[in-house]
Amino acid sequence: MDHPKGLAGIVVDETHISSTKNERLTYAGYSVEEMAKAHASFEEVVYLLWKTHLPNREELEDFRKDLVSKMVLPAETIRLLLYIAREPQHPMSILRTTTSLLGTTNDVDHDEPPKILAKMLTAIAAIIRIRDDKPFLEVDPDLGVADNFLYMMTGKKPDSELSQMFNTVMILHADHEFNASTFTARVVASTFSDYYSCLTAAVCALKGPLHGGANERVFEMLMDIVQGDQDPIDFVKDQMAQGRKIMGFGHRIYKHGDPRACILKGIAEKLAEETGNIDLYNIQQTLADYMLEKTGLHPNVDYYTALIYHCLGLEKETFTLVFAACRTSGWLAHVMEQRREKTLIRPNSEYVGPTDRSYIDDTCIKEVL
Amino acid sequence: MDHPKGLAGIVVDETHISSTKNERLTYAGYSVEEMAKAHASFEEVVYLLWKTHLPNREELEDFRKDLVSKMVLPAETIRLLLYIAREPQHPMSILRTTTSLLGTTNDVDHDEPPKILAKMLTAIAAIIRIRDDKPFLEVDPDLGVADNFLYMMTGKKPDSELSQMFNTVMILHADHEFNASTFTARVVASTFSDYYSCLTAAVCALKGPLHGGANERVFEMLMDIVQGDQDPIDFVKDQMAQGRKIMGFGHRIYKHGDPRACILKGIAEKLAEETGNIDLYNIQQTLADYMLEKTGLHPNVDYYTALIYHCLGLEKETFTLVFAACRTSGWLAHVMEQRREKTLIRPNSEYVGPTDRSYIDDTCIKEVL
Ligand SMILES: CC(C)(COP(=O)(O)OP(=O)(O)OC[C@H]1O[C@@H](n2cnc3c(N)ncnc32)[C@H](O)[C@@H]1OP(=O)(O)O)[C@@H](O)C(=O)NCCC(=O)NCCS
Ligand SMILES: CC(C)(COP(=O)(O)OP(=O)(O)OC[C@H]1O[C@@H](n2cnc3c(N)ncnc32)[C@H](O)[C@@H]1OP(=O)(O)O)[C@@H](O)C(=O)NCCC(=O)NCCS
Repeated sequence: MDHPKGLAGIVVDETHISSTKNERLTYAGYSVEEMAKAHASFEEVVYLLWKTHLPNREELEDFRKDLVSKMVLPAETIRLLLYIAREPQHPMSILRTTTSLLGTTNDVDHDEPPKILAKMLTAIAAIIRIRDDKPFLEVDPDLGVADNFLYMMTGKKPDSELSQMFNTVMILHADHEFNASTFTARVVASTFSDYYSCLTAAVCALKGPLHGGANERVFEMLMDIVQGDQDPIDFVKDQMAQGRKIMGFGHRIYKHGDPRACILKGIAEKLAEETGNIDLYNIQQTLADYMLEKTGLHPNVDYYTALIYHCLGLEKETFTLVFAACRTSGWLAHVMEQRREKTLIRPNSEYVGPTDRSYIDDTCIKEVL
Repeated sequence: MDHPKGLAGIVVDETHISSTKNERLTYAGYSVEEMAKAHASFEEVVYLLWKTHLPNREELEDFRKDLVSKMVLPAETIRLLLYIAREPQHPMSILRTTTSLLGTTNDVDHDEPPKILAKMLTAIAAIIRIRDDKPFLEVDPDLGVADNFLYMMTGKKPDSELSQMFNTVMILHADHEFNASTFTARVVASTFSDYYSCLTAAVCALKGPLHGGANERVFEMLMDIVQGDQDPIDFVKDQMAQGRKIMGFGHRIYKHGDPRACILKGIAEKLAEETGNIDLYNIQQTLADYMLEKTGLHPNVDYYTALIYHCLGLEKETFTLVFAACRTSGWLAHVMEQRREKTLIRPNSEYVGPTDRSYIDDTCIKEVL
């Protein structure tokens, strides 16, 4: 086959949503770094991703209010969720079922992206609360979307510093052009399947350890190192000697560093200091330095997020759920764009097995024919 | 963009499973037409797709027994299914949730493809039974997989003629190289997500009307024509004048006719005669002749299947579920192959929106910065 493996570098389609050109991440032409530094809010970025222009003040406030007002689940969904989320399975499997279930209540045929995003955030917070055996929390109509989401997960309303940090985390995870889960959502959208099918499929892809599932594995690695009282460098050396990939490193697009990781690193350090986790942060530094020197691989978006989520009080099995919550905004942007395309995504394969075999000659049931 | 839209003609990967080269469908080098004519059984074809060689007599009987013995659902799944499948939503939404749920029972981490396929067939039959308000049926250990599946859906054990026809229908739907749902499953598999995530995502894609969802729409069209007492040709003329696509026609790969449709046409005619539906079959002929003459488009796999499923006594909303049951075998073959690849499927996009915008200049919240 003379094509690159895994569609690396193959342009599937044009997009107006985001770009990683020259290893810089931009949303509709705005630098994500700039937005993070200027403390853009999650809802402003969602508006941008969906409309490809920034809102004015009134539009932004209307958008925030609308989203927040929709952060509530139908009673029937809650009832099923209470049942399903208690199963001893991985929370991402539970989210997969939940996302599908969100699309089977009565009125759902008319659900539009704001309602769908709001329901997803609320469902994810609910799954986390159920696992923690804590009661559900209702939105605070005066807070932003990210603050509400954080509050509904953890029970704590963030101060303005934490709010800014968490908004930044959500912004940095909101979109990333044709990553594997977004691309999955677009393939599904291209068949004209419904929104919930697109999101469910995206969750299925995000779950994988080579994609969103990496953040949980990063934390597992840190715990293996700490609990086994191991030297971090010996640990990764040993892993690589066994042919294992080191989670949280490397990227299909970014070969000179993931721009999101730099910003997240600062947030991780700050939160680690505040929550007594600086030892974990220091191990991460040691590993990152070693990996860069020995393999040329840089940390990716999942590397520091793992520590950030831990510092926020989340258990590691729920890390990828938070990723899903943020990325749902980008998935929806891409599903809307793909629907306007009206083109089925249907590639080819190259058959390389034996040809011209005769069934009649080879089948074991030939005597009975 | 100088690339074809929708990845048309782009080779994503090599495969040993199936091929549509020269518009001929082969499974591991065996012509599907030849297998259908020689009355291959569904399980023999599944074995072929999974191992890329035919079984000997003992292997085939072991495989059949193994699959049939696994066509049972855990009690807990049945309990949830009874609840979920009664919701007034589309059965494909229900199947989406169900597929995900099959992957959240206790022991699922060790589920292998035979068990997964068997559970999917059983769950699909169960959804159909629940909708019909009929009790579940248990497998008959002496019957083949297709016969059992048909029996568990419809309550009737097929005679040998019907058995051959239904095995052929299942064989013809079993695989189709990188179609949209299979490709979706492969993208998800490429992240190293689990089997149930791959299948759930595939169901999400199959649901779309441009893909598996077409068979239901074909029947809707026939009903619109019959119930509105309309001239079939006027009907499609009118649809096309409104810019609508005619469901069941056209194909990304087959531009000179879908080889599966020719075989299915014969089965549809036979079953239509036997069940008093020959009028519907005749309308299909009229439409197919007209479409070919006026647009050059041939009927595809979904065109005659719609009538076949109707003749089997299934309601139109469940047609795509039967497609899913057959295609699960192919999805699993591709997921296994993709897992051996160890390459993430992650394409690129081409950003075509405005560039170098300044967030600080444009944001409405600049005053508060
Ligand atoms: C993200 C990822 C799938 C990108 O993959 P890709 O673009 O296909 O990159 P490749 O697999 O071609 O990597 C190039 C080389 O670096 C190696 N490599 C890449 N990531 C590595 C990692 N995390 N640890 C060790 N080696 C790695 C590959 O093995 C390969 O080596 P080779 O050429 O000797 O075979 C890959 O870096 C990875 O698996 N990372 C770990 C999982 C992760 O953190 N995912 C989250 C991404 S946001
Ligand atoms: C299956 C399908 C998506 C293949 O699409 P594709 O490879 O992208 O084909 P295109 O859309 O490029 O079709 C080429 C032309 O035929 C037209 N065409 C294709 N299928 C058509 C249909 N079913 N009815 C009317 N026109 C059709 C297209 O509009 C296009 O015309 P244009 O060039 O004037 O725009 C398409 O044929 C279709 O939508 N069919 C109906 C749904 C269906 O039966 N799906 C099941 C497939 S097994």
